Amino acid sequence: MYKPETIKQLLERNPLNDSVTVMGWVRTFRSNRFIALNDGSTLTTLQCVVDFETLEDGLLSQIHTGTALKLTGLFVESQGKGQSVEIQVNNLEILGTADPDHFPIQPKKHSLEFLREKAHLRIRTNTFAAIMRVRSALAFAVHQYFNSNGFFYMNTPIITGSDAEGAGEMFKLSNTDFFGKETHLTVSGQLEAETYAMGLGKVYTFGPTFRAENSNTSRHLAEFWMIEPEMAFYDLEDTMELAEDFIKNTIGYVLEHCKEDLSFLEQRLTDEDKTKPENERSPMLLLEKLKFVVDKPFIRLSYTEAFEILKYSKENQKKKFKYPISEWGSDLQSEHERYLVEKHFNAPVVLFDYPAKIKAFYMRLNEDQQTVRAMDVLFPGIGEIVGGSQREERLDVLELKINQMGIDAQELWWYLELRKFGTAVHSGFGLGFERLVMFATGMGNIRDVIPYPRTPQNAEF
Amino acid sequence: MYKPETIKQLLERNPLNDSVTVMGWVRTFRSNRFIALNDGSTLTTLQCVVDFETLEDGLLSQIHTGTALKLTGLFVESQGKGQSVEIQVNNLEILGTADPDHFPIQPKKHSLEFLREKAHLRIRTNTFAAIMRVRSALAFAVHQYFNSNGFFYMNTPIITGSDAEGAGEMFKLSNTDFFGKETHLTVSGQLEAETYAMGLGKVYTFGPTFRAENSNTSRHLAEFWMIEPEMAFYDLEDTMELAEDFIKNTIGYVLEHCKEDLSFLEQRLTDEDKTKPENERSPMLLLEKLKFVVDKPFIRLSYTEAFEILKYSKENQKKKFKYPISEWGSDLQSEHERYLVEKHFNAPVVLFDYPAKIKAFYMRLNEDQQTVRAMDVLFPGIGEIVGGSQREERLDVLELKINQMGIDAQELWWYLELRKFGTAVHSGFGLGFERLVMFATGMGNIRDVIPYPRTPQNAEF
Repeated sequence: MYKPETIKQLLERNPLNDSVTVMGWVRTFRSNRFIALNDGSTLTTLQCVVDFETLEDGLLSQIHTGTALKLTGLFVESQGKGQSVEIQVNNLEILGTADPDHFPIQPKKHSLEFLREKAHLRIRTNTFAAIMRVRSALAFAVHQYFNSNGFFYMNTPIITGSDAEGAGEMFKLSNTDFFGKETHLTVSGQLEAETYAMGLGKVYTFGPTFRAENSNTSRHLAEFWMIEPEMAFYDLEDTMELAEDFIKNTIGYVLEHCKEDLSFLEQRLTDEDKTKPENERSPMLLLEKLKFVVDKPFIRLSYTEAFEILKYSKENQKKKFKYPISEWGSDLQSEHERYLVEKHFNAPVVLFDYPAKIKAFYMRLNEDQQTVRAMDVLFPGIGEIVGGSQREERLDVLELKINQMGIDAQELWWYLELRKFGTAVHSGFGLGFERLVMFATGMGNIRDVIPYPRTPQNAEF
Repeated sequence: MYKPETIKQLLERNPLNDSVTVMGWVRTFRSNRFIALNDGSTLTTLQCVVDFETLEDGLLSQIHTGTALKLTGLFVESQGKGQSVEIQVNNLEILGTADPDHFPIQPKKHSLEFLREKAHLRIRTNTFAAIMRVRSALAFAVHQYFNSNGFFYMNTPIITGSDAEGAGEMFKLSNTDFFGKETHLTVSGQLEAETYAMGLGKVYTFGPTFRAENSNTSRHLAEFWMIEPEMAFYDLEDTMELAEDFIKNTIGYVLEHCKEDLSFLEQRLTDEDKTKPENERSPMLLLEKLKFVVDKPFIRLSYTEAFEILKYSKENQKKKFKYPISEWGSDLQSEHERYLVEKHFNAPVVLFDYPAKIKAFYMRLNEDQQTVRAMDVLFPGIGEIVGGSQREERLDVLELKINQMGIDAQELWWYLELRKFGTAVHSGFGLGFERLVMFATGMGNIRDVIPYPRTPQNAEF
């Protein structure tokens, strides 16, 4: 354990009646006596009781919300309500003041929009500290899950000269002389991950990816973090099993390790929902929704089966869908996905064998020549959270597909070589990390689950 | 445990005399009978014995180095030498062939330069598979270390509008309309990490950073992964302690978990060294060097003390340094750092309190007004591996420094606000992940420790 000790470590150690030292920021100061001190290590604030009569002159007037303090005192059982322990301060040092006339993070309700403008300070609120602690725990759960299941972490390139993937608009670099050609920022590490799966067996990426699309929505970022496992010798069944187990484990991890933060975020969501019209409220409480995903076996059915269910649903018959279901082969919308999950099955759903026309070139063609071995995992509240597929490992089929879609085969020479030398069944999926964080924290805007969001017209900080 | 089972899992399970199924790639095939099969999960190849007399016609001729196979057979104790178990194959399926006239990864010695041209296939060699497994283990050790020591993982932005850090040349994005201003790729997440340390307490980043410098050396990449912890309330002493403990733990982790791969890489290095002139060989065997770092207490001394040692060293007196040491205040070169570590102290060394003139604006000025609270960790073979500092938390001193260095203070408005609202002592350090991987694997060229290196004129794949 390092010095300085954090409040979390101190509370765990619980050295009753010992003298201790803590540092942190004042959250509130009331009655010239009770400081609620927070250092970010936990949601819990530590009550520090000062005796204003013995305090040095001039110190008291500097204690405001946001002031950084170093306190020494006796760690004792609290006589007051609301906390079990407190510090009876006998030495107080002001590390840094926070003028209440200028420090924007005051102990009152701030809108999320206001806090986005103060992205460098919003981490000092309970809400953002809780979100970011959960985000950190989720990231660790991802690494721990893959590591303990025999996957190797790999870093695929961010700057790339290949633009064949076609997952979206790309950011281009202006330094073309440096690499001697046009380069841009990656939209996915999948193709490179495939090359490593064909040597190491099971690999995963977890890194930033980019889209230069002008989407100013609550669900899109220009820069976001993606998790992409890729497995040699896995077929689509194996991959659906992996995706379910992976999600249950990572969500299970935060349920176990982030109880306090999740309870706080659940309350925040409940309060927020009260201000909304009934039909826009969350279908479940936050913890209930997370347990729903961990406990319920995911329902697996083909796109075609889902299409039939949707087509003959009351919602569709009564024209309640914004996008009516009529033709086999069209892409499903979020409203259809949520109908399946929240109404029809009341369970997370995995759809597979999608129409080839609406999916990417690298997905393995089924014998019917109409569908591909793709799968999407659908969740309550948000719809698709995972998209994956068995990859087309047959050189001739892949080349045909590339030609049909007008993709430059030259650019993909190395990707095609995987099918020339020791090709094998393999599969993978992708998961946008921020979507997972949104799901786990109940936040409705993706700008609030990443420290410094990049969106159209916004690259501040 | 998932199906399909990997060779590593199979060997651990050791189901003697059971029928098992494995998939992998042929490393070698000899006497029409002995297949050495590898699936990337471990360095170990599994001996699979086929009876060529009962094998289906045409199968035998397709078994070459690189062929992907699915094999079923009895898992038994081996009668042969060189392995303890083997599979007596009774069913063999060719998943993908590898024409020996075209597949470049043949069972012979390939130069590292040749393999860089085949970056999508080099992972099928023992050397690169071992390097990348060690890289993955190191990355996990990093996350595990910080997670178990109360640090929160955060993602700082890759695309940034601020260019004040001045750590080097930057890659610019050409889509200036998208963000409404000039943006470029980050050179460091430190400044943003500081904002989060001042709310969450202890944070770290682990993400890609970029330099558009035309450095075509064996130690520079245009795109590399950096680890940057940042801690509120830590002074420089705490930070030196953290850096030492962090390195010992991560290197200790791979010593414990990657024994087989490290032994292989040690042998590789020893073989390579034999082809070099004596003075270019590694000063220690690989495992010896790693244990050296784990076991030896790091020596701490100030720049000024180191300067004196170097100035009066025999090497300097006899003019054996390429860069002679004469004036206090000049930067130390790799030869000086290695002299201190390998000759003078025979231990890893931490230098601190560097001349202010040669260090960045954000490092805390000492009372002497000449030195700053910076520290570098120096290692055998490579010199500097970690660079860190206590940050200047005093607004007036920081503003003066920014003015003196001609940095645009407007751009850093949010960074300066950290010193206006609840400022406190804080510190952090940075470590180039590829440098750590080079150190741990004994590889001499940074292009060989990242899957797809980006260097001047090279953004292939």
